[in-house]
Amino acid sequence: MNRVFNFSAGPSVLPEEVLKQAQEQMLCYKDSGMSVMEMSHRSKVYQEIFDTAQSLFKQLLNISDDYEVLFLQGGATTQFSAVPMNLSGGKKCLYIDSGAFASKAIKEAKRYADVSVIASSKADNYSYVPTEYEIDQDAAYLHITSNNTIFGTSYPSLPKTGKVALVADMSSEICGVERDISKFGLVYAGAQKNIGPAGLTVVIIKKSLLENPLGITPLMLNYSELAKTGSMLNTPCTYAIYIAMLNFEYMLRNGGVKGAHQRNKEKAALVYDALDSSSFYTPVAKKEFRSIMNVTFTLPNEELTQKFVSEAGSIGLVNIKGHRSVGGIRASMYNAMPKEGAEKLAQFMADFERKN
Amino acid sequence: MNRVFNFSAGPSVLPEEVLKQAQEQMLCYKDSGMSVMEMSHRSKVYQEIFDTAQSLFKQLLNISDDYEVLFLQGGATTQFSAVPMNLSGGKKCLYIDSGAFASKAIKEAKRYADVSVIASSKADNYSYVPTEYEIDQDAAYLHITSNNTIFGTSYPSLPKTGKVALVADMSSEICGVERDISKFGLVYAGAQKNIGPAGLTVVIIKKSLLENPLGITPLMLNYSELAKTGSMLNTPCTYAIYIAMLNFEYMLRNGGVKGAHQRNKEKAALVYDALDSSSFYTPVAKKEFRSIMNVTFTLPNEELTQKFVSEAGSIGLVNIKGHRSVGGIRASMYNAMPKEGAEKLAQFMADFERKN
Repeated sequence: MNRVFNFSAGPSVLPEEVLKQAQEQMLCYKDSGMSVMEMSHRSKVYQEIFDTAQSLFKQLLNISDDYEVLFLQGGATTQFSAVPMNLSGGKKCLYIDSGAFASKAIKEAKRYADVSVIASSKADNYSYVPTEYEIDQDAAYLHITSNNTIFGTSYPSLPKTGKVALVADMSSEICGVERDISKFGLVYAGAQKNIGPAGLTVVIIKKSLLENPLGITPLMLNYSELAKTGSMLNTPCTYAIYIAMLNFEYMLRNGGVKGAHQRNKEKAALVYDALDSSSFYTPVAKKEFRSIMNVTFTLPNEELTQKFVSEAGSIGLVNIKGHRSVGGIRASMYNAMPKEGAEKLAQFMADFERKN
Repeated sequence: MNRVFNFSAGPSVLPEEVLKQAQEQMLCYKDSGMSVMEMSHRSKVYQEIFDTAQSLFKQLLNISDDYEVLFLQGGATTQFSAVPMNLSGGKKCLYIDSGAFASKAIKEAKRYADVSVIASSKADNYSYVPTEYEIDQDAAYLHITSNNTIFGTSYPSLPKTGKVALVADMSSEICGVERDISKFGLVYAGAQKNIGPAGLTVVIIKKSLLENPLGITPLMLNYSELAKTGSMLNTPCTYAIYIAMLNFEYMLRNGGVKGAHQRNKEKAALVYDALDSSSFYTPVAKKEFRSIMNVTFTLPNEELTQKFVSEAGSIGLVNIKGHRSVGGIRASMYNAMPKEGAEKLAQFMADFERKN
């Protein structure tokens, strides 16, 4: 069976080279006599994998020693609770509502903190990222969703927050778009787009923000306790971290995040160009807020949309159906999507338009 | 490189047959054109894997429709918080302190509920499981740790709790020891001993207990919300669940939990017999509370212990060093440890005793 071009929004495509390495090492990692899946997380051989993954990740994102990098579990949704529990400290917490996940983060934060939504693009069906707002300098933090997976929008530049910590859910662009981590107080991301298998969740937190969790914070959501134990308060998701290590090595061999970002821009441009030269397809996101990770557009009607999805599938372009809340098409092109996939999609779009 | 006999307490050995299947399917699962790691958790092909895993697990443990089975993340330690948050409902919560993890569960529960420790074997260095206690019939639940990984003890029979729900951390014996699930209100377990990769955490909960979480319960720790969404409130640890499915299939081909339990008893007997016929080794656990999953014993001194660990390692018997709080040796022999491993260990113990 040939591999398809998988445009899934996540979990999503991984580099074949990484999968092949994992395949080769499945029964025996190096001279350990066992699979990585079978290793004690307290063993020397596993600790080396963990440390390598962490150090490569810091290298890739240029993370300074002012930050702790945590390899956790539970996805971004767990962080929706952990962030206000660990960072609010009785102060007001600011949120920008730029999409479905931003909105979920807000809903959860309101259960633990005094939340103020300072801007929202909800009334315009999240077709852009809000840029007009004031930042109360007494707030604990400003939370943003740097790339909105469902709507296909992204922050062209970061909010200037002054002395207020900037917190970002970076799930769908981490390692795929260059961002200056030193501008953030905290960044979190589910691994299942650009890093590795679902389950692994990365948290990058400024050490100075580790101090003041609410008393009700569950032990496994307490960043300070997790940092103290090197993310090993209990058994971490060992195998997912190993795959991430292989993927980080792959990224570094291929120009790092800078290289990936450049390739991602080129892939996205192929599809956006097809979109812009068409009167048949309608983009969902406003031009200046377009995501290069998730390209979203609609067709003239539901019948044509279904036909598009079905015909694309028959030539190996799969998982391109838009999220139910938006409809239409969503093509997610993370780091591991080959350029050939984007070219084939752009060509198919032109062909489909001509025929329909 | 030959595979070793891996006596790790967890993560631990998996069946070679399962690893080989995963290896074959690493780049392409059936006719999907992708790795299971790359699949959208909302896709039809992945949902089938998830449903199969859940249904085989119910079949293996004979779980009735009165229970919800949840495939979660975060390990047993996350459940230390989730259990009192979801089940206490303002009532007293009873705990038995039978080891290190029981004690951690108690410490965390005290942060959320009125906890009463009704019995403890701490004063005897957890060498047995307490059997003398009274159960307040107005309590919300009684929490036990059915197998104590570090000390190598286990409940020979379950506490009779009357109308009080019995809750068990079954991490180190689930699927390896026959237990009647219908006697429990809730069972939870980290997967990394008998089920699959670290990260996956299973929760079996009586539907009638889903009703009354504390207001402060984080969304991702709320059993009721997790049950409503079929464990897909967000992206589950998809690949770990797939490995669990392969392992459940393997277990069913090999006599189910009954067959595994029988084989585990035979393996443990080999090592306990070596222990009982020796004046050199000292068992840690009292005879009637011996675990068949984790066999613990000490040697006359630290020097001999180190020599034992090192010589065992040189003939491929690895990860047998006892936990630092107990010292000595711990041989964990979960389902996937072949009988040959236990035989080789017993033989080595006899040889080592003769020579030293």
